Formats: sequence, structure tokens, C-alpha cells
Amino acid sequence: MTKTRVEFRSDNCGRAAPELIEALVAANTDTELGYGGDALTATLQSRFSDLFEASVQVFPVPTGTAANALALAAAATPFGAVYCSPEAHIHTSECNAAGFFGGGTKLVPIEGPHGKVNPEALELAITTAGKGLTHKSQPAAVNLVQATDRGAVYSLDEIAAVSQVAHAHGLTVHMDGARFANAIARLGCTPAQASWRAGVDVLSFGVTKNGGLLTDAIVVFAPESATDIGFHLRRAGAVWSKMRFASAQIMAYVADDLWLRLARQANAAATRIAGQIESVAGVTIIAPVQANELFVEMSAATLAGLEQDGVLFYRRGPRLARFVCRWDTSEDDVAALVGSIVRHTAAS
Amino acid sequence: MTKTRVEFRSDNCGRAAPELIEALVAANTDTELGYGGDALTATLQSRFSDLFEASVQVFPVPTGTAANALALAAAATPFGAVYCSPEAHIHTSECNAAGFFGGGTKLVPIEGPHGKVNPEALELAITTAGKGLTHKSQPAAVNLVQATDRGAVYSLDEIAAVSQVAHAHGLTVHMDGARFANAIARLGCTPAQASWRAGVDVLSFGVTKNGGLLTDAIVVFAPESATDIGFHLRRAGAVWSKMRFASAQIMAYVADDLWLRLARQANAAATRIAGQIESVAGVTIIAPVQANELFVEMSAATLAGLEQDGVLFYRRGPRLARFVCRWDTSEDDVAALVGSIVRHTAAS
Amino acid sequence: MTKTRVEFRSDNCGRAAPELIEALVAANTDTELGYGGDALTATLQSRFSDLFEASVQVFPVPTGTAANALALAAAATPFGAVYCSPEAHIHTSECNAAGFFGGGTKLVPIEGPHGKVNPEALELAITTAGKGLTHKSQPAAVNLVQATDRGAVYSLDEIAAVSQVAHAHGLTVHMDGARFANAIARLGCTPAQASWRAGVDVLSFGVTKNGGLLTDAIVVFAPESATDIGFHLRRAGAVWSKMRFASAQIMAYVADDLWLRLARQANAAATRIAGQIESVAGVTIIAPVQANELFVEMSAATLAGLEQDGVLFYRRGPRLARFVCRWDTSEDDVAALVGSIVRHTAAS
Amino acid sequence: MTKTRVEFRSDNCGRAAPELIEALVAANTDTELGYGGDALTATLQSRFSDLFEASVQVFPVPTGTAANALALAAAATPFGAVYCSPEAHIHTSECNAAGFFGGGTKLVPIEGPHGKVNPEALELAITTAGKGLTHKSQPAAVNLVQATDRGAVYSLDEIAAVSQVAHAHGLTVHMDGARFANAIARLGCTPAQASWRAGVDVLSFGVTKNGGLLTDAIVVFAPESATDIGFHLRRAGAVWSKMRFASAQIMAYVADDLWLRLARQANAAATRIAGQIESVAGVTIIAPVQANELFVEMSAATLAGLEQDGVLFYRRGPRLARFVCRWDTSEDDVAALVGSIVRHTAAS
Repeated sequence: MTKTRVEFRSDNCGRAAPELIEALVAANTDTELGYGGDALTATLQSRFSDLFEASVQVFPVPTGTAANALALAAAATPFGAVYCSPEAHIHTSECNAAGFFGGGTKLVPIEGPHGKVNPEALELAITTAGKGLTHKSQPAAVNLVQATDRGAVYSLDEIAAVSQVAHAHGLTVHMDGARFANAIARLGCTPAQASWRAGVDVLSFGVTKNGGLLTDAIVVFAPESATDIGFHLRRAGAVWSKMRFASAQIMAYVADDLWLRLARQANAAATRIAGQIESVAGVTIIAPVQANELFVEMSAATLAGLEQDGVLFYRRGPRLARFVCRWDTSEDDVAALVGSIVRHTAAS
Repeated sequence: MTKTRVEFRSDNCGRAAPELIEALVAANTDTELGYGGDALTATLQSRFSDLFEASVQVFPVPTGTAANALALAAAATPFGAVYCSPEAHIHTSECNAAGFFGGGTKLVPIEGPHGKVNPEALELAITTAGKGLTHKSQPAAVNLVQATDRGAVYSLDEIAAVSQVAHAHGLTVHMDGARFANAIARLGCTPAQASWRAGVDVLSFGVTKNGGLLTDAIVVFAPESATDIGFHLRRAGAVWSKMRFASAQIMAYVADDLWLRLARQANAAATRIAGQIESVAGVTIIAPVQANELFVEMSAATLAGLEQDGVLFYRRGPRLARFVCRWDTSEDDVAALVGSIVRHTAAS
Repeated sequence: MTKTRVEFRSDNCGRAAPELIEALVAANTDTELGYGGDALTATLQSRFSDLFEASVQVFPVPTGTAANALALAAAATPFGAVYCSPEAHIHTSECNAAGFFGGGTKLVPIEGPHGKVNPEALELAITTAGKGLTHKSQPAAVNLVQATDRGAVYSLDEIAAVSQVAHAHGLTVHMDGARFANAIARLGCTPAQASWRAGVDVLSFGVTKNGGLLTDAIVVFAPESATDIGFHLRRAGAVWSKMRFASAQIMAYVADDLWLRLARQANAAATRIAGQIESVAGVTIIAPVQANELFVEMSAATLAGLEQDGVLFYRRGPRLARFVCRWDTSEDDVAALVGSIVRHTAAS
Repeated sequence: MTKTRVEFRSDNCGRAAPELIEALVAANTDTELGYGGDALTATLQSRFSDLFEASVQVFPVPTGTAANALALAAAATPFGAVYCSPEAHIHTSECNAAGFFGGGTKLVPIEGPHGKVNPEALELAITTAGKGLTHKSQPAAVNLVQATDRGAVYSLDEIAAVSQVAHAHGLTVHMDGARFANAIARLGCTPAQASWRAGVDVLSFGVTKNGGLLTDAIVVFAPESATDIGFHLRRAGAVWSKMRFASAQIMAYVADDLWLRLARQANAAATRIAGQIESVAGVTIIAPVQANELFVEMSAATLAGLEQDGVLFYRRGPRLARFVCRWDTSEDDVAALVGSIVRHTAAS
């Protein structure tokens, strides 16, 4: 019998929620028009308009990178600048996608705590960017990652503060919601409150990391942007002909609050781990554990010890580990990780 | 009870083969490394190397458009020209994707019968293209669609003839195999014979149209191209983090010759229709029916009559209809279409 | 003493008009703000507004290719299609520039006589292009070359006919006026009549081929497009820091009708040649000689004979020669070419 | 009589050296083949090969931005990263050109003193960049600005140190030599020593800022890169048809050490100013004055006073001024600037 891995590498290492696969099975009847012309994709539009309490447009897309890059390409001119945290996924981990889709669009890092964009720093960056000067990349959009790439969650006020700065200068607010469910679960607010009501114009709506299989989505709150996005998506080869199988997954994902239940499970595992290691000597949690990720500093010996124990995780620095919990992270996983940390810190 | 549609619009309107969905269910165990680092994707490499009797690399991608555009982008410089049939999908139906991914790559139509590239016309185009002259788009690749966008199938000799011209001038041979299974089923040859043995360097391996759900693939026969393709894919947001669910579909697709059985069913339906309408007065089949598509000229009155009968298909001209058969096209579908054609031609 | 060449290869082989170089000398005083912030470039704006009887914006650019590609990039979305003659310079001779600057913009050839776009063919192409369908490159602009790449000149009615079709469908009308002066000289009309009054939205204003040195220009009639063009130009490295030396050339070029006098000289040389060879047996002029170019069919032996005589010209087919006259094409050049043609046709 | 401006805004505000304009006049004889096929451009190749003591290829281009972006586009893949100083012109002042020409190429700032790239910081950045990981922009090239955007000059050892790091990891070394002449004049070394002998692979050779008009150049030391650059240039509309008029300028620029004499004049003016203000109370020169630029901190009142006196310069911060000297900066200019500074610092 294969031993289950003690897996904390990424939420994308996790299983799909069975409900999404059942939805695929259920969608596999009769024929349907391709490229989003099917009934399920039409239903998805109204379902999300209900969910977000507004008339929105939803575009299922294969990956979060496609969602981010295409949402930004539709928002920014080729001579535009997109502001983001230096920790932002679009900046660190998407292999020039934003620049490629945007025809050269430049990413400009803005400091802030725990992977957040600080609104004062954003204001300063925009006002000193040289708006109207042709030498300069023109301020076009700001990218917020929710939950952040450090495992923190923007409060509604924090989102609103960034959005106000952005909108005052005519920028589009894009939220990379790869872990939007984890953030909503944490905030205990509605999807509308955490998005357009706080100023978000376009949202990368994550599914994959939270029990999905092969689809994420773009949610557009400003309908005038939606036409262009459709063409950008098609030009990018990001429109499935059998779209209904993507739409079916997303419908199942938001049915009966499944997405929030899954996210709560992942968040709870992270919270439990944090609670059990925060007072351990030799352990420093460097960012608030508000979603499903922990960033933890430990000695090199401890990190090596964890690896010897078979704990799977990524190093983010010589002494920095990232642990990611999933909807299906078990009590045993938590216990194994905590036990290993406690054992190796005591030894060193 | 809902009446089943008489559906001939596209093979992408069809259902997924149950075997592929079962493979998704089976793949949903334990955790796995993301972005293609999983065991199933590794197995896929060796499975396809066996299937193609060569050491190949396989990249599952979301769509055929992504497969085509990314394969060509890796093959062609930004100042390159890609030769293709004027009927080719990359030329007529992919919204500038080839030019976008290639940084401006130009598509140059080459005439030929039934959506094929004529090798003599290709030779002439290359030799008069102005190779080495900086004013001129530089010959870089040729695109063959197999089966063609007119429902015909290249013979092995025809592929080899085009490839020889291409290779003599240093061009890459790309095959858009959106309907590769249908072509193999027709030719009765091995995948190797229909691809690299005939000169193909890189293949868009179609799954979606022939019983797939949400994935197609790029198969690279020249290993030196494969490194760049990996980066092109990631930059394009075309690499799923939960890749194993794509690889699982493709494994199931080629298991036990499923792909060929499905294709034979679709081809057989098309052949039956052709056999029953070819001698009907007022009906002209304009291209050989060698795969799963029929292109048929009829009077405007007949076309209107079909539509009134509820037959679903696309017009490709004022008198030209395209009918596409699927793996699950039923005897009833065939009978309904043929009956409608016979009835309306007789009436006019 | 070096024998002067019998030069008919291209108008860009010619000398610069001394007036333009004198203007450079005159502009070389004191200091001036860079990147177009200088007084001469400001004057250029008002000078061209007078010349074109409208409030226009002028952007000096290094080359005609930059002018064309940047004007089209500002007019067309990345998923757009630009219609042009199959003979158009942007299609045959600019190495993917339009696709590159446009992020994949597709060129769609439209037939017509002598390098012109036929308005009925354009209408058909636009209405069958699939406007609004995401598979399809979206109609965005039409490109007219004036004088055409076959040496013909659009009449004002012909321009208006194409423009009406374009505007009825929301397309931008771009005129590649690399030989705009030759066309105006032929038509005997005003620059306004031959451009915006006939429907042109943006003009590549040629200088180089007609006595210029190192600059052409973009003239924008629709002021709302001008902002974006400024950024596109800067992003493309097409904005000189010492802009005044480009503006000075263009000011001299249009002073005292110099540009029209130069163009008339070139046109007259071409007309004289045409008059002297049109009735020669074995010679066929394949397009109306309305500007400064001749396209002439002759036997292979005659072409070889010309080359042996030292006549410099380009072959555009096995039996097709192009001869281009310049503002400084001399009577001796004309006599030498005509003499050589007469001699070799008589011999064969 | 117009008062001559006290001009310290930029070297591109300066006049052209008369010798370059005389060269234009002299080049304006007879006809010549276009697009660099002329005799002068051929001579330029051998002249620069002599100048650089190596077989080089020279491509005259309209602007420094075009030189930089095109040199980098030929060096870096679309998924590549280019390392540069945060002060580098390509990063601060070229409106996304590098990303645009490179198809998304990312600029990664590397700290270092006075606008230089620190080799240890570069080493760290490359080794932690995730080479081979498809998520990550791949290390492709490093950009050195010589003289730097802070007016400092890399020593030969400093160039070699950066180059060694770059080459050890397979990166191309690009030097932005917009002020290459000023650096050579300062270093007192040969062009070869300051370029390829120190590890530079491709050089943007500045002319405009140091007495040029409308041309700069790319100098390629690695001949295998040169072919692609030719096509990149043509695709970018950066190849003049009347190239000889650009080549003539560059030939005159390097004749009889003109370029070095001009640069020495500019450098000397800067040195004189530095010597006269460095001990003035309230004045801080923030970077070594090694070329023709000074970056000087003063009180806001002093800056305002200079502006009231009519001194032309740019602010680079609330208390930071940049003064740029030109080949034709006069003793009067120097005296006026120094006098104004002394007067206003004394007053405050």
C-alpha cells in the first residue's frame, strides 16, 4: 500500500472535488453548440450575476495565468504600466505572460506588507510616473492578489483604499483571485462586497487551486470591457470548443456554497498549523495566516529535517518555507507537519 | 422528453467519450506535483513514444488553436512566413492567433485541391519569396491540415511530397491534426507513417473533436524544439497546474485504440451519407468524403428546407452546406439528414 | 571620370533635393528641446494644417514602413484585419511590420485593377468577414497606396468609393502616400481633396522617395487617434530626440511647392518613356503610367539586353520589368533607357 | 537679438557638429542602391572593423531606443529577462520598447552604485532566477549604460566583471553606449578595450547626443547575431531606404577622432562646473562627474532661483537637478550656471 504523501507543496497538487467531476458526467448528454454557445455557459452568466449581485460576464479560461494576462491585456494599452506587489504571481511566476499578452505592458512593483499593494505607495508611483509623457509607461491598471502571495487577506477597506487611488487616476482594478474563495471564507463577506463594491473592475476567479480541475474564469464587472476580452481570448487560443464542460465545473463549484466549504477546510488546516507552531522556539511565521498558506522561517537544519521526514513543501529562501493547505488536507497531514517541525526545532 | 437534435454543425458539438471522463475520475487520487511534474504526464511521454515509434515529447494544451499557434511560434521567427491552404483553420478561423503568438508571423495561402497544399505551388512560393531579403517575410514553416478543412485526407505520398519541398528549403513541417484520428482511420496506416516518417516535425494532435473534453496536445518529433515550446506554453498561460487531468484524458483516448474506433464511427457515418446522396439530382459533393465531413452544394430552397426540418448545420456559402459527423452520430441522425435532403431536392 | 548610372531601380536610389539639406544647415542653430518639443516641429503642425486645410497632426518618422505600420497599429485592434491590395507595399515588402506593430493584425488582400482596392470586392470581404464572431479577424482598416504599387493613381472618386465602404462599416481609411506627391501632381487637386475630403483618416506622407533624405511622416486627420500614435511611436523607437532636423526637412519639402515640382519632374520622365515605348513591338505596358513608375513586359532577351547595356532596374517577373523615375532622372537617362529597349526589341 | 539660452536640459538639445552636415552634402551625388546596399554603408563596415580592431557589423538606426530595443530583441527570447540598472534608460525612459520588441521580454533591475550594475547582485539574481523553470523569465541578457544614467563611467575592470558573470551563465552583454564617446574620452582607452575586449557582445553606439543629427547605430561583435538583427530592423521599419545619408554621418563622426574631440569638450565643461560648485555650501554632487552630466542636490529655493534666472535643466526629484553639458556648451554657459548656483545658495 502506498503511503499518502505529507503534501504541502501547493494547492494545485490537490485532488478535484468529486462534485466537479460529477458535473462533467452530468453535462455529457446530447449535443451542444461550441465555443460558449451552449446552454450551460448561458446559465453560468446568470448564475454569476446572481452570485455577484450585478450583471457580470464570465469567461471560463484554462488557467489562472491566462485569466490574469488576458484580463490585464484588455485593460491596459501596449504602452501601459500595471502596478502590483513585488510578490505578485504575475510578477514572479508567469514567465512574461503579462508583457506578452499586452504587447509589452510593463509590471511595476509597489511595496506593501505581506504581498499587498500599499495605497500611498501606489499614489506616489502613479503621480510620479509621467502621465502623458511619451517616454514613460502609462499608468493603466493595478493588480491585487487576494489572498496575497504571502497568505494574507486584504480587508474590504484595504481593497477600497487601493481602488480609490486607482480610479482617481483612471486605472483599472484587477483582482487576481486565484484564492478568492479562501479570502471570502476568511472575510465572511459576500462576493460582491469583496469585488465590485470595493472597486474591483475585473476578477480572475480561481477554481483550480480550490478543488477544480482544468478551469478558472474571468469575471468582468464593467460590461464595456467584455467585448474585447472575448476576442483577446479567442486570439490566445483560450476558448474551448466544448466550453460546456468548463462551465459545468464552475456551476458545480459555486453550487450550495461548495467553493466556500472547500476554502474553509483549507483555511482551517492552515490556522490549526499556525496555532500549533507559532509559539515553538525557532519558528517565525512571517505573515499573518489568513488563508491557506503559511510562510515560516526556521533554521536550515529544521528545514532539512522536514525534508528527511518526507514532508513535501517549497523553500522560498535559505530559511523560509511555504506550506500550502488544501481542501483535502487531512488531520494526519497537519499532525505530521507539526510533529516534524516540533521534533526538529527541539533538536537544533 | 426532449427530442434529440439532428446535429451536423460540428464535431465539437458532440459528447465526450465516457472512457475519458472515467479516466478523470480514476486520476483523482492522492496528490501530485503540478504543471506536468506528475506521474501520469511522465507516462504520457513514454506512451506516445511507443505510439509514434520514436522518442517524442507531448504537451497537453487546452485547445487546437493554442496547439497550432504555439507549435508555429516555436518553429517560426517573428519575421517568418507560414505557408498554408487558404482553407486552413489557422487562416480562416483562429482570429490572428498565429500572428499574435509569432510576433507578427505571416500566413501565406498556397492553393491546392480540397484544402491541401500543392507541393509545386509551395516550391514556387518559397523560391520566389526572397529568402535573405530583409523586405520579405522569410519562409519558415508549412502547415498541413489532416484531415483537411474540406474533409479530404492527404495520402502518405502527398504528405511526403510537401515535406520534401519544405525540408529542402529548411522549413518546419507542422501538421494540424485536429482530425488526425479520422485521417489515420481512413489511411489505415500507423501514426508514425502519417507523421514523422512522412516528414512531419511537429503535430497538433486533436482530441476534442473526436470524443475529448477540454484538451488537445502538441507532439514534437524534433526534440531540440521542445525546450522552447515549454516556455512558449507557460508564457501563454497554456500549462495547467493540474496537468494530470489532461494527461489522463489523452491516455484514455489512445488506450485500446479508442481514438481510432471513435474516428471510424464518425467516418462511417459520413461515408454512409455520401453514398446515399451522391446520386441525388441537385446535390453536388464538392470534395472527396474521406473523413467525417461533407461539403455539399444544393439549391437555396433545399438548404432552407433542411433548416425548416430542424437539421443543424453550417452554411459555407449561398449554396454550400457543411455537415460534420461525430463518433456518436446515430443511424437516426443519418436517416434524418438524408431523408430531408432527398425530400427537398425532389420538391424543387 | 565615373559614368553616371542609367538608374531606374527605385526612387529611393535618388539624390536628396538640395533645398532639404540646406534646411538642415539652417536648422542647426542654438539649442532646442528634444523629442518634438522644438519650435520647428510646432510650426510644422500649423504649416500642415494650412496645407491640408484642416487641423491635422504631423509626426515625422524615419521610414515609410514605420509610418504605415504605426498608423495601422493605432487604427486596428490586435484581432483586427487590414484590407489592402495584393500588390500593396505593406503586404509584399515590409517584412511582417504590420503584424508586428499590430500584435498580430492580419492583412487581407483585396483584388482590384493596377494595385487598387476595388470597393465592391472590399464590401464583399467586410460583409462576409464574420464581424462579431470571435473566430474571425475583425475588419479594422483599409490601406490604399497612392500612387499604387503598379504606378497608377486613384481618382478622387475612386478614393471616395473605397472610403464610403470602409466608413459604412466603421473601418479606418489609411493611405500609404509614399508617392502622394506624384499622385497630387497627376491629379492636379489639393492635398485636402486627395485625402480627408475623399475620406482618408490617416496618411503616410512620403518624403524620402521624392527628394527626401531620412524622414517621412504620418498625418492624422482624426485628432482623437493622435494621442495613441504618439505613444506607439515612442514605444517603437521612432521618435528622434533631435526632431527639429526631421521637421526642417519636411518644412523645406513643402515650401514653395517644391514637393510638387519634384514629383512633376519624375512623373514627366515616366510619361516621356511611356510615350516613346508604348508603340514599340514586343513591349507591353501593363498598367497606366500615371505617376513615376512603369511596369513593362518584354521578352527575356530584351530584359537581358537592357542589363547588358548597364540599365539598372528590377525584374518583377520572368518578363516583367519595373522602371522608376526620380525627380533628378535626366533626359540622358530617358534616352538611354528608350534607346536600349528599342534596340533590343528590334533585335529579337 | 535673441539671447542664447543657458541650456543644460539634455545633450539632445544641442546642435549637430557641422562636419556631419557637410558629410550629408558630400554624400548627395549620383544614385545609390537603397536599404544599405550603397558604397558608403559598405565602407562603414570596414571603417568600424578598423575602429574596433575586429570584424564587426554596423547597423545605422534612427534612435537610441531603436538601437537598444532591437539589439536586446535579437539577444533575448520572448520569455527572457534582461538585467539592468534601475536607472537604465531602457527601464525608465523608453515606454515599454524593450518589452514590445522582445515580445514580452522582462526588465529586471539590479542595484549598483551610480547607475551601474553590480556584478555580485547580478550573479545572485541569475542564480536565483529559476533557470529552466517555465514559470520564470529566463536570464537572457544584461544591459550596461556607458556612461551611466547618473553620469558615472564604468572602468574596464567593472565592465569585465559584469561580463564574466553574464557569460558564465550564457547571457548576452549589451552596452547602451548613448554616451559611449564620453566614456571613451574619459577612460582614455580604445573602443575595442571598452567593448568586446571587456566582454561586450553588442553595442548601441550613440551619435545623436554627441553632435549627431538623426542617426545612432548598433555594432555587433558576434557575427552570428547579425543576420537576425537585419530582419528585426526591417520588420521594425528602422531601415532607411536612403541609408547612405545615415552612414555618411557616422563616417564623419568617427573621422579624425571628431567624436572624441566633441565628447572631450562636453566632459570638460561638466568637470569645470563640478570643480566650481563642489565646495559650495548647500550643494551636493551625488554621483562622480566622469562624463558630461551632473546630478546635484540643492535646496528647493536654489532650484527655483536657477529657474528664475532662466537656466534650463530638468529636476529629477524635489531637490535633485540634472545638468547636461554638450560639445558646444560655452564658457558663458558654464559661468552662467555656476554664477546662478553660487548666488542662490548664498542667499538661502
